[in-house]
Amino acid sequence: MTRQIEIDPALIDRYLASLAKFGAYGETGVWRTVYSPAWVAAQDQVAAWMEEAGLEVRRDAVGNVWGRLAGSEGGSSIVSGSHIDSQRPGGRFDGALGVIAALAAIRALKEQCGTPRRTLEVVSLCEEEASRFPASNFLGSRAITGAITPEDAEQMIGYDGETMAEAMRAIGLDPARLPEAQRDDIDIFIELHIEQGPILEQAGVPVAVVTAINSIRHYVVELTGRSDHAGARPMDMRLDPMAGAAEITLGVIDTSLRMGRPAVTTIGKMEVEPGGPAIVPEKVTFTIDARHPDPETRLKLFQAHEEWMRAVATRRGLELKWTITTDLIPCVCDPELVRTLQVAATEAGIPFVTMSSGAGHDTQRMANIARVAMLFVPSKGGRSHTPAEFTTTADAVAGIRVLADGLQRLAYGDERA
Amino acid sequence: MTRQIEIDPALIDRYLASLAKFGAYGETGVWRTVYSPAWVAAQDQVAAWMEEAGLEVRRDAVGNVWGRLAGSEGGSSIVSGSHIDSQRPGGRFDGALGVIAALAAIRALKEQCGTPRRTLEVVSLCEEEASRFPASNFLGSRAITGAITPEDAEQMIGYDGETMAEAMRAIGLDPARLPEAQRDDIDIFIELHIEQGPILEQAGVPVAVVTAINSIRHYVVELTGRSDHAGARPMDMRLDPMAGAAEITLGVIDTSLRMGRPAVTTIGKMEVEPGGPAIVPEKVTFTIDARHPDPETRLKLFQAHEEWMRAVATRRGLELKWTITTDLIPCVCDPELVRTLQVAATEAGIPFVTMSSGAGHDTQRMANIARVAMLFVPSKGGRSHTPAEFTTTADAVAGIRVLADGLQRLAYGDERA
Repeated sequence: MTRQIEIDPALIDRYLASLAKFGAYGETGVWRTVYSPAWVAAQDQVAAWMEEAGLEVRRDAVGNVWGRLAGSEGGSSIVSGSHIDSQRPGGRFDGALGVIAALAAIRALKEQCGTPRRTLEVVSLCEEEASRFPASNFLGSRAITGAITPEDAEQMIGYDGETMAEAMRAIGLDPARLPEAQRDDIDIFIELHIEQGPILEQAGVPVAVVTAINSIRHYVVELTGRSDHAGARPMDMRLDPMAGAAEITLGVIDTSLRMGRPAVTTIGKMEVEPGGPAIVPEKVTFTIDARHPDPETRLKLFQAHEEWMRAVATRRGLELKWTITTDLIPCVCDPELVRTLQVAATEAGIPFVTMSSGAGHDTQRMANIARVAMLFVPSKGGRSHTPAEFTTTADAVAGIRVLADGLQRLAYGDERA
Repeated sequence: MTRQIEIDPALIDRYLASLAKFGAYGETGVWRTVYSPAWVAAQDQVAAWMEEAGLEVRRDAVGNVWGRLAGSEGGSSIVSGSHIDSQRPGGRFDGALGVIAALAAIRALKEQCGTPRRTLEVVSLCEEEASRFPASNFLGSRAITGAITPEDAEQMIGYDGETMAEAMRAIGLDPARLPEAQRDDIDIFIELHIEQGPILEQAGVPVAVVTAINSIRHYVVELTGRSDHAGARPMDMRLDPMAGAAEITLGVIDTSLRMGRPAVTTIGKMEVEPGGPAIVPEKVTFTIDARHPDPETRLKLFQAHEEWMRAVATRRGLELKWTITTDLIPCVCDPELVRTLQVAATEAGIPFVTMSSGAGHDTQRMANIARVAMLFVPSKGGRSHTPAEFTTTADAVAGIRVLADGLQRLAYGDERA
C-alpha cells in the first residue's frame, strides 16, 4: 500500500530561487556552463541540500553529485535527477528543475516513509547542453555509462579555446580518472524535465508521462543546378536549385504535418550560392531535421523525405547529394515504469497525458545501462533555452508528487517494475 | 537606294583577338576593370584603330573614346558602340564586340560608301559592369547623359578601397571635368551586344532585333515567424517563416513561368536566422528579382507577386515586410529604328528574331537623350559573365552587317527614322 507523499511548494520555490542565483543572467535567466565558477557553486549548493536532507553525498570523477538513501535490501539503485548546466543564456528550469524534483521527492520519501527497501539516489548531472564544449553534450550521463574517455576530455575544445581537460583540472578534477565515473549498479533512471514545447499548456494538464524520446536524423542536402543571368535566361530553360529547394522544403514539411503528431521536420539552415539577387543560383545547401519516437514510423518518415527529394531533383534536372550528420535512434521508455508513473498520477488525482519527447535528454544515454522513464511539466508558451522559460510552482509540485509516488512504489512497495 | 555592306571576317577576328590580349585571363577570359592598366591599353588600341579607319578621335572627361565620321549635312549624330570594361573575370565578347562592331561597320561604310550625309560616331564606353566600383554601373553612358557628378566620383568606393576620383587622377583624368562629358547632340544610339541568354542559339538564328530592355525590380523580403525547438514544437503549432519563404518562392517562380516569356522571376539570395539545424527559424530574408519589358505587363507581374506574398504570410500567420531596392522602368526601343534594322536584316537575307533584352545595357541610359535600338548576336549555351562566353565569327559578322546596313539607311539614305 502506498501513501500520498506531500511536497512543500515553499521548499520548491526556495530551491529554484536559490539555484537560479548561481550564474544569474538578467532577472530570470541563467548562464551556467559546466566547470565554471557559477557551476561549482551550484553543485556545492546541491551537495549541501543533499546533506541537509540526510543523504550520503558523493562526487564522481566527471563532476556529477550524488545523494544516496541506502535501501534495507541493498542491490542496484533507483536513480532520479537531471543536469545542472544551462544554455548561454538559458532559463532556470531546464535541467535544474529535475535535480530539485529528485532531491525534494527523495527528501520527502525519507521524511514521510523512512528507510526504503531499495536504494534511492539523486543525481545532479554535470552537463547536458554542450553550451561550453560543442562536442560535450550529455557529458554527465555519458560518463556514467562509460562513454567518455580521458582522451575525449583532452580533445574537446571549448568555445573559448580551452580543452575540457584544462577546465576540469582548473576545478580540481583529474581527467585521467574519468573512467571511474562509470556505474553498473543502476537499475532504474527517472528524469523529470520541463516539456520545452507547448503540448501540456495547450492540453491544460500539469504532467506528462513520457513513453519515448525522439529519434533525430539530420540531413545536409546539396542541390546543384546551373547559374544563369536572372534577366537573360527564360524561366522554361532554367535549372534552378532554389526552386527545387523550395519544393523539397514545402514537401517534407507537409509530409510531417500530414503524418501528424509527434512527427516533426524542420529546415533550419539554408545557404544559396553564389547568392546574388540577379543570379539564378548554382547551388543550394540546406539541412533537414526529422524526428519521430517510433522506431518503425521514423523510417517511414525518412523514406518519404528521401523519395520526395529524389522526385523533385529528377523532375527538375538537378543534381542531388545528401549526407546524414546525426542519426540517433529513438529511446523507448520501459513500459512497466511508464505504467507505474501513470498509476501514481491516477491515484494522486493529478491529470496527465502520455506523450513522447521531441527534444533529447540524459535519459536516452542512461537507457544504455538502466530501465528509464521521464515526466514532463508544462513550459509556458512552449518556450525553452531562453530566460523566458517558466513553469508554475503548482505544476512543478504536481510533477514532483507523481515522481515521489512513483519512486515510493518502486523503492518501498513490492512493485516489480 | 542602299547597297549591301561587306564586312571582312578576318578583320573582326583580328580586332577580337587583339582586344582580348588587354587584361587576358586564362585562355579565353578577360579581367579588364575601368581605369586599370589593361583598360588604358585597350582604349589606346581602340583609338589607334579609329585613326587607322580615318575617323576623328576624341577622348572625353570620363574616359569614353569617340571616333567621328563627319556628315556632309552636319547636325546631330548617329552613334553606335558599347563598353570596353569586363566582369572579373568576364569573357571577350560582352561589351567589346559592340565596340568592334561599330568600328568595323563605320569603317566599312566609309570605305564602301564614302562620306555620309549625317555624322556617324563610334563610341567605346568606359564602364558598364560595376566590376571595380559597386555603384558605378553604366558610368560611360551616365556621364554622356549628364547623370554623373564630380561628387559621385569622390564618393564611389571601389572593391579595393580607392575612390573613383583617385582612380581617375591616377590615369590623368580630372573628376572635376566630368560634366564636360555630357552631350546634347546625339539623335540615335544603336548598340550591338551578345545576347547573354540562350534564345538565339535555341532558335538557330544569328541576329535579334531588340524591341525593349527589361524593367528590373528587386525586392528584399523579410518574413518573420517564431523560433521554436525543432523537436518539441508540433508541426501544427508552428509559425515557420522557412515554410512561408519556400511557398512564396515556388509561387512567384510559377507565376512567371505561366505568364510566359519574357517574364522572369529569380530568388537569388536567402538568409535564415538563427540558422541552426535544430531550430525552427525566426526570420527568413530573401530577394526577388522580377523583370518584364512591357510597361503594363510588368505591373501585373509585380502585383501578382505582391498578392501572393500577402496571401502566404496571412494564411501562415507570418509578419511580412518588403523594400524595393531597385526599380528600373522598361526601356522601349524606337519603333522606327526597330523597323529600319528589321528591313536591313530582311534585305540582307539574314535570319533574325525580334525579342526583348533580359539584361540591362548602356542603351537604356542613352535612351534618356536619344532614340535607341539594339541588336543581339548569339551566346553559346546562353553563357555570359564568364571566360566561357563565346560567339562565332559568322554570327558576329551577320550582326555587324545588319548594323552597317541599318546605319547606311540612316546616315546615307533619306530614311527619316
